[in-house]
Amino acid sequence: MTVSATTESTQITDQEVFASHEGGKLSVETTMPLDSKRALSIAYTPGVAQVSRAIADDPGKHATHTWASRLVAVVSDGTAVLGLGNIGAAASLPVMEGKSALFREFGGLNSIPLVLDTTDVDEIVETLVRLRPSFGAVNLEDIAAPRCFELEQKVIEALDCPVMHDDQHGTAVVVLAALTNAATLTGRQFKDMRVVVAGAGSAGIAIADILLARGIGDVILTDSRGIIHRDRTDLTPIKAEYAAKTNTTHVVGGIADALEDADALVGVSSSKICEEDVARMKEEAIIFALSNPDPEVMPDVAARHAAVVATGRSDFPNQINNVLAFPGIFRGALDAGARRITAEMKLAAAEAIAELAQDKLSPDYIVPSPLDPRVGPAVAHAVALASQPAQG
Amino acid sequence: MTVSATTESTQITDQEVFASHEGGKLSVETTMPLDSKRALSIAYTPGVAQVSRAIADDPGKHATHTWASRLVAVVSDGTAVLGLGNIGAAASLPVMEGKSALFREFGGLNSIPLVLDTTDVDEIVETLVRLRPSFGAVNLEDIAAPRCFELEQKVIEALDCPVMHDDQHGTAVVVLAALTNAATLTGRQFKDMRVVVAGAGSAGIAIADILLARGIGDVILTDSRGIIHRDRTDLTPIKAEYAAKTNTTHVVGGIADALEDADALVGVSSSKICEEDVARMKEEAIIFALSNPDPEVMPDVAARHAAVVATGRSDFPNQINNVLAFPGIFRGALDAGARRITAEMKLAAAEAIAELAQDKLSPDYIVPSPLDPRVGPAVAHAVALASQPAQG
Repeated sequence: MTVSATTESTQITDQEVFASHEGGKLSVETTMPLDSKRALSIAYTPGVAQVSRAIADDPGKHATHTWASRLVAVVSDGTAVLGLGNIGAAASLPVMEGKSALFREFGGLNSIPLVLDTTDVDEIVETLVRLRPSFGAVNLEDIAAPRCFELEQKVIEALDCPVMHDDQHGTAVVVLAALTNAATLTGRQFKDMRVVVAGAGSAGIAIADILLARGIGDVILTDSRGIIHRDRTDLTPIKAEYAAKTNTTHVVGGIADALEDADALVGVSSSKICEEDVARMKEEAIIFALSNPDPEVMPDVAARHAAVVATGRSDFPNQINNVLAFPGIFRGALDAGARRITAEMKLAAAEAIAELAQDKLSPDYIVPSPLDPRVGPAVAHAVALASQPAQG
Repeated sequence: MTVSATTESTQITDQEVFASHEGGKLSVETTMPLDSKRALSIAYTPGVAQVSRAIADDPGKHATHTWASRLVAVVSDGTAVLGLGNIGAAASLPVMEGKSALFREFGGLNSIPLVLDTTDVDEIVETLVRLRPSFGAVNLEDIAAPRCFELEQKVIEALDCPVMHDDQHGTAVVVLAALTNAATLTGRQFKDMRVVVAGAGSAGIAIADILLARGIGDVILTDSRGIIHRDRTDLTPIKAEYAAKTNTTHVVGGIADALEDADALVGVSSSKICEEDVARMKEEAIIFALSNPDPEVMPDVAARHAAVVATGRSDFPNQINNVLAFPGIFRGALDAGARRITAEMKLAAAEAIAELAQDKLSPDYIVPSPLDPRVGPAVAHAVALASQPAQG
């Protein structure tokens, strides 16, 4: 295949970017005009007192008569912001505003950014517990690994509402959707595939997890020190957990060793992989080089050794973009009144995304465009269905 | 004077109130459409990374390139909600949504409700400190006295942004504005006036404070046990503090004793005052019976003994409504980049509100209508000016 960059989004100037961010990217509006005494009496005193009294008498009315149950809090401590690293809560806010804007645009949901001046897991959990009546779901964002794993688990346990760390699961869901279609295009069965996941941070771990859940034959995770295997003594607890579940043939060494005869590479490593290493992969390989803005291997190079290539960038074909997943996942969970985002709901989301590309499937089109208006509703519908207990 | 209820806002049905509250009263919208790859690249990745990096390098850009510096958090623990009392955070949310809606409508500001499942002063302060990069100002709301005084003080000390407990100071500002014009109408000078403030909760204390700051001759505060004076041994610390500053002639007894020869009554007590007690006031008395929905004394009764009567209700003339003050106070403080809402700024707000009614001043028109579009900008302008250090 040949891969060339499209030009649509490459002409952005600094001036445009900064001008667009002046004053921020969100506004809070009222759903009813407050332009008469009558409207004020309905929306505020004395009318509002009846609604508050009704919620005090029947807590279920909090879900129906406030905005909270449809409101996603985008929560970050600013420790792993895009490719910028630990830049702090205040500097992370433009990203979180953008995320909230995406929830509105692609999920039809209200969303507010809450950026926290603490990186202590228990303090973040405690803060969200105190704020619980203010929102209906929590999207954790840009929180550094390995702390993000413990944090997500604790927030899920502490709150009775949908919680998801998008950098883990949003990415994993879209990767699974793309890999489903890439496997079809290259005539592969998941059970026979060996997939190398380069990078064992928040995204890498979650990708390994969802691929194993979907029945991929074997996954090999690598980190900056090479292949993750059970004899390594330098692993964090979460990496040690995955050392036991992955790499069943006990491959050792570096990325070159991992890629030898691999079917697919999923790069989420923020580092480079050289051409001679990807050349070691099987014929008709699948390469997803997802680091932004610099893919592990540039798509034109990857295409010399692969049948299907994807990146995280909007200026190449096959953009693996979380926005395909998270708005619909949260919308579906909230539509269904789900208290958890389960593995089944994530798998259903991946399947829905994959299906939307199947009518025009080609090496240059394995996932729908982030702008495809069918995506959000289709994912929401699939997730809501998957959240229901199976019918006898 | 004669006082009769207007009818405009009295026809509200329960059905209308509940229908208007379905799904809440606020929505978060994007300030730019995200309908093209180009727009996504500006508002989200890769463009947003430049803005985040710029804030990391220059924290001042957080104020100009996020929504936070123009965002008012409406914060409540649900302990003193309207006339409903301690109904909890979840049940308070419709009121806080309404407040945020009023910030949008009358202050042109973004605002989000944050309701907290804790009533511990230090935990509330700690939560707001952790959330600090998320907002630009804090409106404390419906927090019970006397805890509200300690809380407001601690939040002001902990945060480098405008903070105000509106139930205290919003009410006090509008009362001062109304009393300014009522004094003019009845030919009184503040320094010669004795004002009885019935109710020593959050509003009563703040009203006493601002009246003394403006030079009222004497204030007598009463609580459910009668007149507050320095020999009482049952006073909370804040009441004891005001016992020392008020009631300079050491009047003792009940509300009847307080009203003997008083120039003005400001009722914020949520209790009733009988006609024979208000009959003890001076000729041409001023009566503000502000408890909602049941004024301390109904306006038709009050009018038999007073030259100027006001209530908190929209269906009588002279509604003393906080919405005249808080949107403009916060707007002015944020416009000026003020780090504190000072006594001078509150006095300036009161003066601006009073001035707006002076072109048509009458016993039935001592404050502008809450819907008067001049109010928010005029208050904001006056507050912003008052926040600047005086010029040499």
